[in-house]
Amino acid sequence: MQLIKNLKWRYATKKYDNSKKVSEKHIDIIKEAIRLSPSSYGLQPYKIKNIKNAKLREDLKPLSWGQNQITDASHLFLFCNSIEVTDKDVDDFIKLKSSINKIPVEKLSSYGDFIKTKLSKKSEIEMFHWTAKQTYIALSNAINACAELEIDCTPIEGFEPEEYNFKLELNKEGLNACVLLAVGYRHNEDTAQQATKVRKGLNKIFEEI
Amino acid sequence: MQLIKNLKWRYATKKYDNSKKVSEKHIDIIKEAIRLSPSSYGLQPYKIKNIKNAKLREDLKPLSWGQNQITDASHLFLFCNSIEVTDKDVDDFIKLKSSINKIPVEKLSSYGDFIKTKLSKKSEIEMFHWTAKQTYIALSNAINACAELEIDCTPIEGFEPEEYNFKLELNKEGLNACVLLAVGYRHNEDTAQQATKVRKGLNKIFEEI
Repeated sequence: MQLIKNLKWRYATKKYDNSKKVSEKHIDIIKEAIRLSPSSYGLQPYKIKNIKNAKLREDLKPLSWGQNQITDASHLFLFCNSIEVTDKDVDDFIKLKSSINKIPVEKLSSYGDFIKTKLSKKSEIEMFHWTAKQTYIALSNAINACAELEIDCTPIEGFEPEEYNFKLELNKEGLNACVLLAVGYRHNEDTAQQATKVRKGLNKIFEEI
Repeated sequence: MQLIKNLKWRYATKKYDNSKKVSEKHIDIIKEAIRLSPSSYGLQPYKIKNIKNAKLREDLKPLSWGQNQITDASHLFLFCNSIEVTDKDVDDFIKLKSSINKIPVEKLSSYGDFIKTKLSKKSEIEMFHWTAKQTYIALSNAINACAELEIDCTPIEGFEPEEYNFKLELNKEGLNACVLLAVGYRHNEDTAQQATKVRKGLNKIFEEI
């Protein structure tokens, strides 16, 4: 099964071969996997910054526990979750749904109101973490897309979100630096590639009730 | 590409054919995809309850916005995130890593201390949401596993976590009801299967900087 094969193949790459670049054709496939990701109500409350500026990546490295992947991987994606989902965001979603599903907006308005009512019950902090969780679904699909393409990647939580937010002025866009994904090709000296995957046994994770 | 095919094939199933059961062989594959999921430091801070008791599923339905999938899907998985990750959890992980990677525990102790120090900096609420985000990676892999097996599923956030926690006494186990996944086969009358997927365009999600 491809998914199991992908999950077994991948590992959190520690050292990249910075001479090897991922093709734009492959990047487009990874982006499409992210774009097609499910999210609550289908709202996709996130944006992804493809950080191409080499100088900027150098500047971000000290804000990322000095990790080499920040500068050495072929690509660096910053997944940003939306700080809030506004009524306008819901209206935009309803308009998009109307257009794609060829249903008049008026027929979808009660659904839009339902979503708005549900979202209005979330506190500011709940909303923040809720959009972050949706973002992790997109992250997960990006990781799987890389694996299927035999491209290495490293999901990175080891960075200072507040420093990223300030440096990239993310809050002005209503965004928060949620998680990073370095993407590229492993260095042949990366010893992490030889380690057997460490996972709990099934009985430690699953229970029938 | 299998992943893109999976993402296009799947949809949030609204109505299940309750006469069709997913085979245990397939359930085992879905469980393995969950088990192999990446998580921060590899700590896998979650447990998944496979809710088989039909009476219990009836009881949970009113706590889940009355949604039919709770009772009609072949299987119902409740993904629970750990409320906290303790030093003992880290020690257990280090022991597991020691055993699998054949490295003496003493050689891993500084890594264990590093993880503990990092985790100690998270507030209670940050810890709670951080484990929930890891849980969503596992959820995402379960969704993809289903799709590759051409099994339908529905990720469900529409339930009352506090009511679930109380009913299932999850807090006693250090767990929180995070998200549900109904798994089964679509009813041929489920109109949701005909709807075109609604997703934002690439330019609404991605930006190069």
